[in-house]
Amino acid sequence: MTANPATPLLDTVDTPADLRRLAPGELRQLADELRTEMISAVGQTGGHLGSGLGVVELTVALHYVFNTPDDRLVWDVGHQAYPHKILTGRRSRIRTLRQPGGLSGFTKRSESEYDPFGTAHSSTSISAALGFAVASKLSGKPGKGIAVIGDGAMSAGMAYEAMNNAKQAGNRLVVILNDNDMSIAPPVGGLSAYLARLVSSRPFLGLRDLARRVSRRLPEPLHRAAKRTDEFARGMAMGGTLFEELGFYYVGPVDGHNLDHLIPVLENVRDAAEGPCLIHVVTQKGKGYGPAEAAADKYHGVQKFDVITGEQVKASSGPPAYQNVFGETLAKLADSDPKICAITAAMPSGTGVDRFARAHPERTFDVGIAEQHAVTFAAGLAAEGMRPFCAIYSTFLQRAYDQVVHDVAIQNLPVRFAIDRAGLVGADGATHAGSFDVTYLASLPNMVVMAAADEAELVHMTYTAACHDSGPIAFRYPRGSGTGAALPEVPERLEIGKGRIVRQGSKVALLSLGTRLAEALKAADQLEAKGLSTTVADLRFAKPIDEELIRRLMATHEVVVTIEEGAIGGLGAHVLTMASDEGLTDAGLKIRTMRLPDLFQDHDSPDKQYDAAGLNAPHIVDTVLKALRHNSAGVSEARA
Amino acid sequence: MTANPATPLLDTVDTPADLRRLAPGELRQLADELRTEMISAVGQTGGHLGSGLGVVELTVALHYVFNTPDDRLVWDVGHQAYPHKILTGRRSRIRTLRQPGGLSGFTKRSESEYDPFGTAHSSTSISAALGFAVASKLSGKPGKGIAVIGDGAMSAGMAYEAMNNAKQAGNRLVVILNDNDMSIAPPVGGLSAYLARLVSSRPFLGLRDLARRVSRRLPEPLHRAAKRTDEFARGMAMGGTLFEELGFYYVGPVDGHNLDHLIPVLENVRDAAEGPCLIHVVTQKGKGYGPAEAAADKYHGVQKFDVITGEQVKASSGPPAYQNVFGETLAKLADSDPKICAITAAMPSGTGVDRFARAHPERTFDVGIAEQHAVTFAAGLAAEGMRPFCAIYSTFLQRAYDQVVHDVAIQNLPVRFAIDRAGLVGADGATHAGSFDVTYLASLPNMVVMAAADEAELVHMTYTAACHDSGPIAFRYPRGSGTGAALPEVPERLEIGKGRIVRQGSKVALLSLGTRLAEALKAADQLEAKGLSTTVADLRFAKPIDEELIRRLMATHEVVVTIEEGAIGGLGAHVLTMASDEGLTDAGLKIRTMRLPDLFQDHDSPDKQYDAAGLNAPHIVDTVLKALRHNSAGVSEARA
Repeated sequence: MTANPATPLLDTVDTPADLRRLAPGELRQLADELRTEMISAVGQTGGHLGSGLGVVELTVALHYVFNTPDDRLVWDVGHQAYPHKILTGRRSRIRTLRQPGGLSGFTKRSESEYDPFGTAHSSTSISAALGFAVASKLSGKPGKGIAVIGDGAMSAGMAYEAMNNAKQAGNRLVVILNDNDMSIAPPVGGLSAYLARLVSSRPFLGLRDLARRVSRRLPEPLHRAAKRTDEFARGMAMGGTLFEELGFYYVGPVDGHNLDHLIPVLENVRDAAEGPCLIHVVTQKGKGYGPAEAAADKYHGVQKFDVITGEQVKASSGPPAYQNVFGETLAKLADSDPKICAITAAMPSGTGVDRFARAHPERTFDVGIAEQHAVTFAAGLAAEGMRPFCAIYSTFLQRAYDQVVHDVAIQNLPVRFAIDRAGLVGADGATHAGSFDVTYLASLPNMVVMAAADEAELVHMTYTAACHDSGPIAFRYPRGSGTGAALPEVPERLEIGKGRIVRQGSKVALLSLGTRLAEALKAADQLEAKGLSTTVADLRFAKPIDEELIRRLMATHEVVVTIEEGAIGGLGAHVLTMASDEGLTDAGLKIRTMRLPDLFQDHDSPDKQYDAAGLNAPHIVDTVLKALRHNSAGVSEARA
Repeated sequence: MTANPATPLLDTVDTPADLRRLAPGELRQLADELRTEMISAVGQTGGHLGSGLGVVELTVALHYVFNTPDDRLVWDVGHQAYPHKILTGRRSRIRTLRQPGGLSGFTKRSESEYDPFGTAHSSTSISAALGFAVASKLSGKPGKGIAVIGDGAMSAGMAYEAMNNAKQAGNRLVVILNDNDMSIAPPVGGLSAYLARLVSSRPFLGLRDLARRVSRRLPEPLHRAAKRTDEFARGMAMGGTLFEELGFYYVGPVDGHNLDHLIPVLENVRDAAEGPCLIHVVTQKGKGYGPAEAAADKYHGVQKFDVITGEQVKASSGPPAYQNVFGETLAKLADSDPKICAITAAMPSGTGVDRFARAHPERTFDVGIAEQHAVTFAAGLAAEGMRPFCAIYSTFLQRAYDQVVHDVAIQNLPVRFAIDRAGLVGADGATHAGSFDVTYLASLPNMVVMAAADEAELVHMTYTAACHDSGPIAFRYPRGSGTGAALPEVPERLEIGKGRIVRQGSKVALLSLGTRLAEALKAADQLEAKGLSTTVADLRFAKPIDEELIRRLMATHEVVVTIEEGAIGGLGAHVLTMASDEGLTDAGLKIRTMRLPDLFQDHDSPDKQYDAAGLNAPHIVDTVLKALRHNSAGVSEARA
């Protein structure tokens, strides 16, 4: 194990107040030490590296110039905020990043007053900063709202919606566009091309023209008067940047690694801005760490690694990741079906769509961080007879809920939703958990919702979805590696709404949806050992549920327990509703539903998360035993 | 009753094929007749008028120039598509608009092959048209995707996401920006100001410079070569319009009421476009009908009216609309609470926020059609100590679901959601029904969800929400007028998670959430008449549910029935889940849940919709009687 690096200057800085006591000439060294410290920490914990390396100087400059925490600094997504955490009182815990009980991999209000707004999903920062700015304005407090947002995040509609409203903030809103020409994957779309042209068509602001340009944009009595006339505004706006056209003062581009340029620009904006400002800062993802700079993904997300060599700890080879099983299965199906398309919202590798893209680039659509568009675009493709697969993480599909309802479900269009990262997600924590998809999808008319119990099931479900032309269909599967199930040579087309009996018993019935099946089977073993004959069914479908199978199991078992990795309102609710509709609950049947608890679970190891959620085999056994012991005497007596 | 107007030329046109047989010189007359016919029809049915009047010429021109239905024409929102319906085989039914069994007030796939994509929620058209364009390109079919989108709809993020991806369509995508400087209310934000400057800074394209300009933007061998060099692209983009910067060819502005200009522009774009085109058409909402042109809202949505005078049938004066009770209550509360803010997404009058705005303009935020931003902006306000109320229709809040989860619920920020149009919505139909909010909100940790049984309850809930600083809280209420309940002088702060007994009985318990309470009370009368003593509870809260009350009622009644105006997964599911968690269902209690059916209900009169949904008093009685008769003999025997 390498010793932590020597950081004599950084050691004197615990909070931004300490930082502001340094002379400007010391900041370069501080930034260097901060970068070294961050590399060392992430080498030990793994996590997001490239983005943080790109904003080391920016982080130093922002805290040096602005009055944090009273000026509210919102880091979009927040995975680039490790240097920020080090400078804001969390250095002592920086080697606990993403570890159980440790610091979050994103910003989080409960962690620090320097995190005024938690982030994790992309593109929320301008809206939040605008909220801070307006609230301060209304209550007459000093303080600005500052959003730091990447060029990739700018492709999302909500960033644009916020920019469109920027004027409300007056000069209290500062947006830092951190343009590193990259999100997780290379960026796509018109805006990205525009930014590239913008950067290449103008030189970086130097110290001299900086002073000139900035002062030209910012208030002087004469300019102020002129600006108020319509003529001037009209003339200016037609030739300005896109950001000026939306109502910002645009300042840039600025070299984001040059503190001598960054700091005067920020000071000028801080002191002299007359309206909302957008500062276009150009940075390099992975900056200052050779192996990251050289890597295609700029070490976006890494395992623990050796700081000297940059070599990452290899994940032990095991069963394939679900996402790759999906991507490869879909690619194979598309070989013989020219109508299959794949759509990803800036997550080609995370969703396995990259594997599809290699075989079928012309049918692959990376739309950028734009889930809303992704879904309605897919609906358009489906309406024209294609077979689109929208591969989106469960938590991000929330961004497109209205499009799922309004453009897909109401029109009964056969869009296929490949829902990755369903259920708990370990180190990514509450913001990335896929807890709600079964509830928010299975409540929709026309929708079919499946959950894969293992990677072989995922193959079948991908194929079943491809075959399902009569309406929308979704299938969910978890983060991480499969169970090791043998992948089928030939995928099977599952009958819609039919589950399967995995193990036959007679007293207890466990109805599982998704990958908790393995725990249900373990629980069945333990129950059997106690003399309780146990049936285990893999329901496969949360909608439509297999009513015939459920009816039969309810008629022939004493206790029926549903198990799913999702919030209330999902499978359990649908089973209970059907049972009560039909009066199956009237006669003293014991039904229980096991689901995610009613709280947002912090990041932790997956095992501990399941334990905390109460969704492991011992909890299932316990639920069954308690149900069997329960005699509801109190209830019966009171009613009599 | 006025006779229908004489329309000799229009009478010869049943479909666009007929239209295309006319000489260009005849189109002006056709447009005039079309306008007259539309005014006459809406005079008889009520509905959306101003938007349709504004696009009469555009509708004629589009169908004249493009090869519909093979070219896919998508009308954003679709409420301006009445002239389109008249020209596409639906004239004989045009006087059934929005009537039970009649034509939809929006475009709808099932109505006509000329409606390739159903619309109703704003800002979906570019994504859908892009889907059509790409699908045709992939399959080698001819055909373009054409989106007609208003300037108001352009403020929504998903329109921007789609524009950002336009390049994928090549020259198969045509976007018509229908700029009437107005959505339902005057437009807001930077984009709107930009469009106004754009229009005022350039003259309308005339016939002569049109030819010149268009040809300059569109392919000629020489230009084509030049454009392919980076230098040229770079030079051009920096000075272009916002749309050019995102990758469109921009053509405009064009006078949208001048067919002599519109048609050559469209023909040029149809024949010569090299990439995606945006045609900026300037129209006047309400054009050609004096009373509409003179009205502030341009007759956006009207009751039946007298065509000669423009006088609308007055709604009979009765109890106040829920939205106004909300707006006025909130305005009063804000008089003594400087932290209360109201946020609307382009619906100031529809949500009653206009009444708040009159009293507190500086604390009112109309963010445009931008629900995502609205919610996260509110979260920012809340994080800074304000008390923001987001007033958004149930169906539109779906647009901001991820923001509700990620920015509000996870952070447990006290954003108040005033959810209007919850439940069925009559003439607006399936796309506007508020069916899913209880399900998608009550599944979220930290969230409180209330539903008002009448307008007095709405007053209490508005106040309760204002007082609730510990986390997010939502309250839902229906479209239309209240029940006539006396409004309280002093609002009451409701205890979180506590329901109320409205009527005490002993055998049957009806647990109501929201305005079905009146039907529950009617049903109780009828049950009582049959000798069945009936308790009626207004649960008020779907989350947290009143466990103590429910436990007590379950222990003391034979049949318990929940009633709500929402989809599966809502109150009924939460009650069943709690009951099964606690084993209350084990002992032979009869529980039933009444909810919206698993289908998207077409527009109809509200009464008929409730009847079809099975949520009126007779259905409640029937459910209770059936439950009492049910002996579940089959189940018991099989289990024995």
